[in-house]
Amino acid sequence: MAGGPSFRLDDLAARVGGEVAGDGAARIEGVAPLEEAGPGDISFFANRKYRAAFEATRAGAVIVEPGEAGGAGNRLVASNAYLAFAKVSTLFHPPRAAVPDVAPQAFVHPDARVAASAEIMPFAHVGAGAEVGARTILFPGVVLGEGARVGEDCLLYPNVVVREGCRVGDRVILQPGCVVGSDGFGFAFDVQGEEGSGPRHYKVPQAGAVVIEDDVELGANTCVDRGTLGDTVVGRGAKVDNLVQIAHNVAVGPLSLLMAQAGIAGSTRLGMGVILAGQAGVVGHLQIGDGAKVAAQTGVMHDVEAGAVEGGSPSMPHAEWMKVQAVLRRLPELVKRVRQLEKAVERLGGKP
Amino acid sequence: MAGGPSFRLDDLAARVGGEVAGDGAARIEGVAPLEEAGPGDISFFANRKYRAAFEATRAGAVIVEPGEAGGAGNRLVASNAYLAFAKVSTLFHPPRAAVPDVAPQAFVHPDARVAASAEIMPFAHVGAGAEVGARTILFPGVVLGEGARVGEDCLLYPNVVVREGCRVGDRVILQPGCVVGSDGFGFAFDVQGEEGSGPRHYKVPQAGAVVIEDDVELGANTCVDRGTLGDTVVGRGAKVDNLVQIAHNVAVGPLSLLMAQAGIAGSTRLGMGVILAGQAGVVGHLQIGDGAKVAAQTGVMHDVEAGAVEGGSPSMPHAEWMKVQAVLRRLPELVKRVRQLEKAVERLGGKP
Amino acid sequence: MAGGPSFRLDDLAARVGGEVAGDGAARIEGVAPLEEAGPGDISFFANRKYRAAFEATRAGAVIVEPGEAGGAGNRLVASNAYLAFAKVSTLFHPPRAAVPDVAPQAFVHPDARVAASAEIMPFAHVGAGAEVGARTILFPGVVLGEGARVGEDCLLYPNVVVREGCRVGDRVILQPGCVVGSDGFGFAFDVQGEEGSGPRHYKVPQAGAVVIEDDVELGANTCVDRGTLGDTVVGRGAKVDNLVQIAHNVAVGPLSLLMAQAGIAGSTRLGMGVILAGQAGVVGHLQIGDGAKVAAQTGVMHDVEAGAVEGGSPSMPHAEWMKVQAVLRRLPELVKRVRQLEKAVERLGGKP
Repeated sequence: MAGGPSFRLDDLAARVGGEVAGDGAARIEGVAPLEEAGPGDISFFANRKYRAAFEATRAGAVIVEPGEAGGAGNRLVASNAYLAFAKVSTLFHPPRAAVPDVAPQAFVHPDARVAASAEIMPFAHVGAGAEVGARTILFPGVVLGEGARVGEDCLLYPNVVVREGCRVGDRVILQPGCVVGSDGFGFAFDVQGEEGSGPRHYKVPQAGAVVIEDDVELGANTCVDRGTLGDTVVGRGAKVDNLVQIAHNVAVGPLSLLMAQAGIAGSTRLGMGVILAGQAGVVGHLQIGDGAKVAAQTGVMHDVEAGAVEGGSPSMPHAEWMKVQAVLRRLPELVKRVRQLEKAVERLGGKP
Repeated sequence: MAGGPSFRLDDLAARVGGEVAGDGAARIEGVAPLEEAGPGDISFFANRKYRAAFEATRAGAVIVEPGEAGGAGNRLVASNAYLAFAKVSTLFHPPRAAVPDVAPQAFVHPDARVAASAEIMPFAHVGAGAEVGARTILFPGVVLGEGARVGEDCLLYPNVVVREGCRVGDRVILQPGCVVGSDGFGFAFDVQGEEGSGPRHYKVPQAGAVVIEDDVELGANTCVDRGTLGDTVVGRGAKVDNLVQIAHNVAVGPLSLLMAQAGIAGSTRLGMGVILAGQAGVVGHLQIGDGAKVAAQTGVMHDVEAGAVEGGSPSMPHAEWMKVQAVLRRLPELVKRVRQLEKAVERLGGKP
Repeated sequence: MAGGPSFRLDDLAARVGGEVAGDGAARIEGVAPLEEAGPGDISFFANRKYRAAFEATRAGAVIVEPGEAGGAGNRLVASNAYLAFAKVSTLFHPPRAAVPDVAPQAFVHPDARVAASAEIMPFAHVGAGAEVGARTILFPGVVLGEGARVGEDCLLYPNVVVREGCRVGDRVILQPGCVVGSDGFGFAFDVQGEEGSGPRHYKVPQAGAVVIEDDVELGANTCVDRGTLGDTVVGRGAKVDNLVQIAHNVAVGPLSLLMAQAGIAGSTRLGMGVILAGQAGVVGHLQIGDGAKVAAQTGVMHDVEAGAVEGGSPSMPHAEWMKVQAVLRRLPELVKRVRQLEKAVERLGGKP
């Protein structure tokens, strides 16, 4: 990356709120993993699993927590090393800026409003009445339905769909193939049907929309269904991984984190800062309190209090789940012990 | 929504097969959730969780089951209140009708056949020999492969893919990003390989297709693989939620309901009206009988009889699973009790 | 399929390394399932579940393992019958060959390099500096980002996305809607935030890329995230089913098989020939040894040794898991037996 950005180590430290241990004049020209970093690179160490790589690294500097400030090499010491790393890496890898343009191969409906500073790439489609805010980028194949609104400084990666009437805030990132505003899964069973139809599932119109608030990120091929009447909402600053399902009328609280392949059924409300780990599921019409955590593959079937941690399927408090798991593997042995007890009691003249 | 549809309450009741309790002349101009409804709106109450909202609602009328016909406000009483709500809501939110047109930015192969009443939006692609029926809408980014056929009155939302040779019936709705006709996952392990290749997984051609019968709906980013030789079939009136996997040569029976993130492995056959709840999985080559139900996150590894309800992973009859779950949390305590029994038996002179 | 390929049975056998039992001169004009095959078709029998269909088939010949060579009809006998079937079927269903062309409705950036023998279909997008190798086909709606490289003889089905800087090898197949190079899910919690922002999840730049090696296949709507700094790698000859999540910095070893809806969290490394069954999950920063197998819906939370088989969530050795499952259903009964034992011991004068 010749000609890329370059910083003095002490300059980097000042910009991210850290301190230098070692040579503040060291020149940093890139960011690299511990194993691959060279003398011009800064690297990052926090997970103890990688201590050997940390000790062997050829990096020009390493971002560490205060406890790791000692040792031979240069250190950028920060109380939240991961945050410092994120900020340093952003200096070297700034987000792509919009190049104001509407590609001649794009389709922008005459009744749509696209900010002059926005970038609309080929085969992007902006429907009637849709709006695109300042400096927002629509990559190829993005489809905004009628009246869909996208705010400022957003990145909508290729083949993202925002269906009619949905609203996306500012600084939102939608990874490729993500779908906002698909119909919720609502059907009323009609055992008689119409003339000739026989029994059928009668579609309940999904007449609400989706609101994606500011600073949200949605992962690749993640789906957020529109509400049946009201709106489905993903709150400010929430981050959602790939292949996540958010059903109709769900509310995801601000700053929540939903990991890959998690799913939330209809009308469930997550508080602020809720964490769903990968492949976790939550059934419908529940309340999940602020800061609750749900372990991977957990199945939540009841309301969860603020701050609680759940595990298991169906779920229970995680600490209890851990205890159950610890003894679960001893279950076959337990069955044998009970059988022996029964024999022993019988030998003693008892009737088990 | 000035200028939108407006009905007398007794007119609505007559149209959906219900009866009025209260003022049949009340004017209804919209549908809204209990909390948000005003005097011009009709709302809906069935889930007891929302009784407080029902009692506090300002709605001009509420659709209810017969048991809730009493009380002060206007009621539209129907034996299947949810179905009545669906029909009322459809009167206020009719499905989008096709505007006959082929957008100049669309691609329609000269050998394709598109009904004159169909609507083909920009960047939709209709391959050679493909067919699009009357009043069907292809939204932007839809891709129909060679010889793919789509019937009448269908909605194919943005970025839906129907690969070559697949057939979609009438009144089918495909949500955004849904894929019909991807290759099934079939490989034969070839330990020798060819010259220079080493061991390899040899691809088994997926030469069949997919048949989506009439009145089916498939969710956003759901995938239905084409058959290896014969066809994968989703039967009449089945409804499939988002992010569902339907593998090659599966048959989904008519009127089945597959919830979000469920998966069905190859060659498994579901009967009529089968329900798979969210994140449930069914392994391959099984028979799942008519009306069987599978709970959320369940893993089905054996045939299931008609009408049975399964839970757990691997699955068992749901009632049994519930009993196991009920005692599972007592397992750590049970281990302690067995240890105490062993000590007690020993004190009694027995040998546990 | 008049005019399609046609072979003598002994010719087919010679081409796939098998032997004929019966009439080698039999004319074979197609491949069909046992139930549907006619006298001109060859079929395949290996799964004992389908023995009745095998015995009743009208197929002109059946591909079988050596143990099934007897009986009345013509047989193509091969030691690996499934592989022989795959090869025979490929003779009848050769992969689609590229028709050298760049559609006028495609977008190819002036700085991109597209091989003259490649086929670029309408609404495919090849970004600046991107490369497309010989005989590769980009179906409609495929998006290659800036500097993305795709090798020779690849099939990129409709609406596939390969984001900027990612590299795809030779003979790779990407099913529709598959995403390569979405941002990994990395955020540092910033409790203070900037002026006015309040607490936030600060995005960690995902500055690495994805490398898809030769002969890989990725399923429909599957997602492979780009690395945070280094690359995410899917190794040579690995096959990945639909709706699979591969997180940032994961390494999938050569010849691995990942079934539908499986998920791998960040930085985990799979060895060669690892198998993850459907809906299985593996947490981050683990090592999964060569040839390890993970059962469906399993949740792996620790390193797994080469050749090991894991089941359960959280996982344990599969054999142990099977034993636990076998007794799990007896747990309610076990609780009763312990209660009876306690009473019996009490009657004997002991204190349980």
